[in-house]
Amino acid sequence: MVIVMGREATQDDVDSIVSVVQAAGVEAFVSRGVQRTIVGLVGDVTQLDATGLRGMQGVRDVMRVSTPYKLVSRENHPDRSVVRVGGVPIGPDTVTLIAGPCAVETPEQTLDAARMAQEAGATLLRGGAYKPRTSPYAFQGLGEAGLRILADVRAETGLPIVTEVVDAHDVDLVASYADMLQVGTRNAQNFALLQAVGAAGKPVMLKRGMNATIEEWLMAAEYIAQRGNLDIVLCERGIRTFETATRNTLDVSAVPTAQRLSHLPVIIDPSHSGGRRDLVLPLTRAAIAVGADGVIIDVHPQPELALCDGPQALVREDLGALAQVLRDLPPLLGKTAASAVSV
Amino acid sequence: MVIVMGREATQDDVDSIVSVVQAAGVEAFVSRGVQRTIVGLVGDVTQLDATGLRGMQGVRDVMRVSTPYKLVSRENHPDRSVVRVGGVPIGPDTVTLIAGPCAVETPEQTLDAARMAQEAGATLLRGGAYKPRTSPYAFQGLGEAGLRILADVRAETGLPIVTEVVDAHDVDLVASYADMLQVGTRNAQNFALLQAVGAAGKPVMLKRGMNATIEEWLMAAEYIAQRGNLDIVLCERGIRTFETATRNTLDVSAVPTAQRLSHLPVIIDPSHSGGRRDLVLPLTRAAIAVGADGVIIDVHPQPELALCDGPQALVREDLGALAQVLRDLPPLLGKTAASAVSV
Amino acid sequence: MVIVMGREATQDDVDSIVSVVQAAGVEAFVSRGVQRTIVGLVGDVTQLDATGLRGMQGVRDVMRVSTPYKLVSRENHPDRSVVRVGGVPIGPDTVTLIAGPCAVETPEQTLDAARMAQEAGATLLRGGAYKPRTSPYAFQGLGEAGLRILADVRAETGLPIVTEVVDAHDVDLVASYADMLQVGTRNAQNFALLQAVGAAGKPVMLKRGMNATIEEWLMAAEYIAQRGNLDIVLCERGIRTFETATRNTLDVSAVPTAQRLSHLPVIIDPSHSGGRRDLVLPLTRAAIAVGADGVIIDVHPQPELALCDGPQALVREDLGALAQVLRDLPPLLGKTAASAVSV
Amino acid sequence: MVIVMGREATQDDVDSIVSVVQAAGVEAFVSRGVQRTIVGLVGDVTQLDATGLRGMQGVRDVMRVSTPYKLVSRENHPDRSVVRVGGVPIGPDTVTLIAGPCAVETPEQTLDAARMAQEAGATLLRGGAYKPRTSPYAFQGLGEAGLRILADVRAETGLPIVTEVVDAHDVDLVASYADMLQVGTRNAQNFALLQAVGAAGKPVMLKRGMNATIEEWLMAAEYIAQRGNLDIVLCERGIRTFETATRNTLDVSAVPTAQRLSHLPVIIDPSHSGGRRDLVLPLTRAAIAVGADGVIIDVHPQPELALCDGPQALVREDLGALAQVLRDLPPLLGKTAASAVSV
Repeated sequence: MVIVMGREATQDDVDSIVSVVQAAGVEAFVSRGVQRTIVGLVGDVTQLDATGLRGMQGVRDVMRVSTPYKLVSRENHPDRSVVRVGGVPIGPDTVTLIAGPCAVETPEQTLDAARMAQEAGATLLRGGAYKPRTSPYAFQGLGEAGLRILADVRAETGLPIVTEVVDAHDVDLVASYADMLQVGTRNAQNFALLQAVGAAGKPVMLKRGMNATIEEWLMAAEYIAQRGNLDIVLCERGIRTFETATRNTLDVSAVPTAQRLSHLPVIIDPSHSGGRRDLVLPLTRAAIAVGADGVIIDVHPQPELALCDGPQALVREDLGALAQVLRDLPPLLGKTAASAVSV
Repeated sequence: MVIVMGREATQDDVDSIVSVVQAAGVEAFVSRGVQRTIVGLVGDVTQLDATGLRGMQGVRDVMRVSTPYKLVSRENHPDRSVVRVGGVPIGPDTVTLIAGPCAVETPEQTLDAARMAQEAGATLLRGGAYKPRTSPYAFQGLGEAGLRILADVRAETGLPIVTEVVDAHDVDLVASYADMLQVGTRNAQNFALLQAVGAAGKPVMLKRGMNATIEEWLMAAEYIAQRGNLDIVLCERGIRTFETATRNTLDVSAVPTAQRLSHLPVIIDPSHSGGRRDLVLPLTRAAIAVGADGVIIDVHPQPELALCDGPQALVREDLGALAQVLRDLPPLLGKTAASAVSV
Repeated sequence: MVIVMGREATQDDVDSIVSVVQAAGVEAFVSRGVQRTIVGLVGDVTQLDATGLRGMQGVRDVMRVSTPYKLVSRENHPDRSVVRVGGVPIGPDTVTLIAGPCAVETPEQTLDAARMAQEAGATLLRGGAYKPRTSPYAFQGLGEAGLRILADVRAETGLPIVTEVVDAHDVDLVASYADMLQVGTRNAQNFALLQAVGAAGKPVMLKRGMNATIEEWLMAAEYIAQRGNLDIVLCERGIRTFETATRNTLDVSAVPTAQRLSHLPVIIDPSHSGGRRDLVLPLTRAAIAVGADGVIIDVHPQPELALCDGPQALVREDLGALAQVLRDLPPLLGKTAASAVSV
Repeated sequence: MVIVMGREATQDDVDSIVSVVQAAGVEAFVSRGVQRTIVGLVGDVTQLDATGLRGMQGVRDVMRVSTPYKLVSRENHPDRSVVRVGGVPIGPDTVTLIAGPCAVETPEQTLDAARMAQEAGATLLRGGAYKPRTSPYAFQGLGEAGLRILADVRAETGLPIVTEVVDAHDVDLVASYADMLQVGTRNAQNFALLQAVGAAGKPVMLKRGMNATIEEWLMAAEYIAQRGNLDIVLCERGIRTFETATRNTLDVSAVPTAQRLSHLPVIIDPSHSGGRRDLVLPLTRAAIAVGADGVIIDVHPQPELALCDGPQALVREDLGALAQVLRDLPPLLGKTAASAVSV
């Protein structure tokens, strides 16, 4: 960390900075220039709050030099990681399709959707039993009954299950059914939940908060990693901007950026970012073309009856085009579509 | 809800909208115009997802006509509410000062800060025992030991306690100490936590999510209200924008807007929005002048030693100016500074 | 336009809305429901200001039903347009590469960059003679001398020229040299300039304002179209968001969205959105994959000496990879790379 | 400027940075640490592009140490400035009310509005003869006829005139009528216009771009100052965020922040930021309370007939309350309401 003092800073101002810094067990080196005095810090600066220091008398700016995340950083782990979910790889050599219904509604609907997912080339099944909804009056998911349906459909189809957990209380229960735990965008800074999934012994898909910077997203992953779990897949799903023509703005640049800063795999959710069926295929193509290690897509046998996000779900007639995208695009990036594990 | 069909919409498109809507138990009235067909919906539209409908074939736009929140809406409750915290009112006739340290660190620091708060005119004490931090390596609060310190300081000073809860697990424990539970900006859509504080039988201060629209903020309050708790105070604390000169952008317009839409009291946190000590007094003046029903402010006896957000805390020499603001401004709005309850 | 009245609206409120609307020559139809009164408007509502009406007594919401742009809308022009620049097409069947230096600096640098562009498959040459710069102390371009260099390089290479104009004063001069006029992101609502390029008789590339909604972008295009010029190419170049890891956030969803709403071609600028060389190829792939009708890319023979945006320019060793992308990706979307016109 | 190299940076990477920097005439000092190499720059770094350097091989971050604006900075000009418009001061000791119609429509409407403005305590008259409108089909102002009306009303009332100029072509004409030239939010980076008003010899009110950072706003002011004109008043008018309940989000924190960084006066426009009449008085109070040196407010004798932004205009019955705010609040900040100059 480097602290830049303003031109008006007095010796007292500098001394007081130095004593704050030293009180936190960090060494401070003062370098006086013609125009500016700069204080360089060496040691464990994680206890120091940059915004706080910035408010002290005489301080003009505080600049962080090293990354605030360590376990998920690529600095100490130059090779990109592969995360395996029920044997299916997500990583630099593959493009993994995860598909299924937004919410588990009935056994039939879930099995139908899983068959649709397989037809399109999916090797992992998504499906929500616990749904975080903006309105308390909206459908909140089937809970454990939904998890049992997912387990039955896994037995029938061989597809490992990815499913969301929204409450730290439920992590053990959900982990007893799921092959991968999903943390949603609204829980991207629910630190109790992040720690609980970090301790659950299952791979985690961490969606980016719709208002999270890439750095905050990696810090959230660090919370999980710190509990001993490095099987984390990052998922970009759109950020909140002033544009209202789409539900959120898919930030494709986040994929190569996160892959440069972290060794973790990065996938994209083209269904929830755009919020419209007609955007799913174009955004899926963009996702694979920009280098995503996978995509997670809503499919539904009868989206007009879906209890959640139906109109963004792909339908049966879209599956051929999706399968085609998965055949055509990955080879152009030196990747292959991830194969299913033999049942 | 009103659905506007595109010019290209066919009869089949309209029929399929109508059947989706009716499947949700809502009546649909189709009105064909020269240029457009419009489908008006009557009934409980809360199960319908506007974004979803917007994605259906032939649909040009979907517009919501009634508010999606009911219990916290001012439509059915025209008088603005007063929430009482340990006897201290927060509401339309008063300006309540809540002050104290960002984090509880030691008994001495907490008592000192409470005395500073009282000197400035505070009638409620803030202080965090559980701190949600972006970095897993930063100080996370003292936990129950911190709650015990707060209780001791309340006994000593008579100030009721406002303190944050970050995990649904901890709600009962925190509620057994606190006079008011605070839900922070990162948990603004942690629905499990919202429901838990709704059931805890204590007043709640609900901070606006830094990326939440005013409507989403009121929907989060509705989650609390739905569990039977209407003692909710809304707190604007800055939203995330492109501007980087301040930590967040304080949205003062949100105060009169939320007061127009909801009967709940609305206060402002000038400390966390700006993130700089020199902004606290100007933003406090703006908060009261725009009509806020209170302010919540960080004070610290030795901010240079604070473990959290020290440099935004007011210090002893600022207290006189703060007390002056609380004397001068409320009368101009027909309000009085909220008095302490006699111990 | 539909005006939704609040539950509290009186007959006087409705009457006063109706008289405002009628004063603007628009017909108003009042429809009283159990919960709400709705006022539907028929006629030329372009003189009415939705935000204004929204502020009137008793009004709950104002919703626009028809598009506010007409000439560029796809509603009345279902086939997507092709714009020809010096004979080179930009449109639905092709992917056109426009490349060249950010700024024209010397004849040698410009010719070198043009040769690089051709090597990568470009059929149009970009290059700025007038540079809008945030700082008045930064290099502002060579002006007419730069235009002469561009014309010489066109004569030498056969590449038609795309170049920016920043002042309505200069439009005739720039148009006398250029094959296509570019309006930059900072001038996206410089209406005098939009009208001037609309009257200049040359195709126009209109960059999206970094803070413009897609609707505002199409309204800006409507300003140009209204002067009789429909040879407009829309260019998405990133929008301003809270994320600071990239210069701007490339909004790939804007491409299919603008193509759905307007008949105009839409291209992407992957150089200025990301602001980093290592993002240019991934974003170019994403651009073509999402369906863009072209890309505009900075190349520079010696970017370390560039006077403007050097470090985002592609260098000689990147050209093979770029050419490969242009060969591989367009056929997957049923497009071909646009051919050069024979000199 | 300080360049921080990544851990992976080679000696070649450092050498190549140094040569780029030296080519721009700037000195580079390399300091090698255990974990990092840092390159400090001394000299005129204004030709260097931080975003560009950030993209070079081995660079981790680029941090600017000195302010990029000089003439408007408070660093070299610690006393805050007073700008006089037709004799009326705008500066640190006063709160100046500028009021009038959004657009000049007729002589009667303009004179009526001016009388209303005076009744509320205004000492300067606002009124637009040239209106930048998002839609080409909306009313664009009366042009020179409007300027003549303003001049007549000035003769009648003694109020100096503030009016917008939207095209560099028109600056001389507008300056021949106006006492102060206004540059609007959509022209905040129309550099040709900024330079033209800088040379026009009249005070300038520079509205903040709705997407401009405070730094960019000050850079725009620097464009004007560089042409020899330091009579600049900054005007905050709301920024674009994700919130849709208000037209824009008024950033009150920008006032003390800009006053800390620049010596120029800073005022607020509460009419255009909120876009609703019922927000104007609360936001005006907040503006004065946060320390603004003035406010600019729309008033209209018959807003229901206004051709532009009618519903945000204050009406006759609001004037008493506005006058009261101007009497009550400024003294609390050690200011007085600015007096009219005797005619």
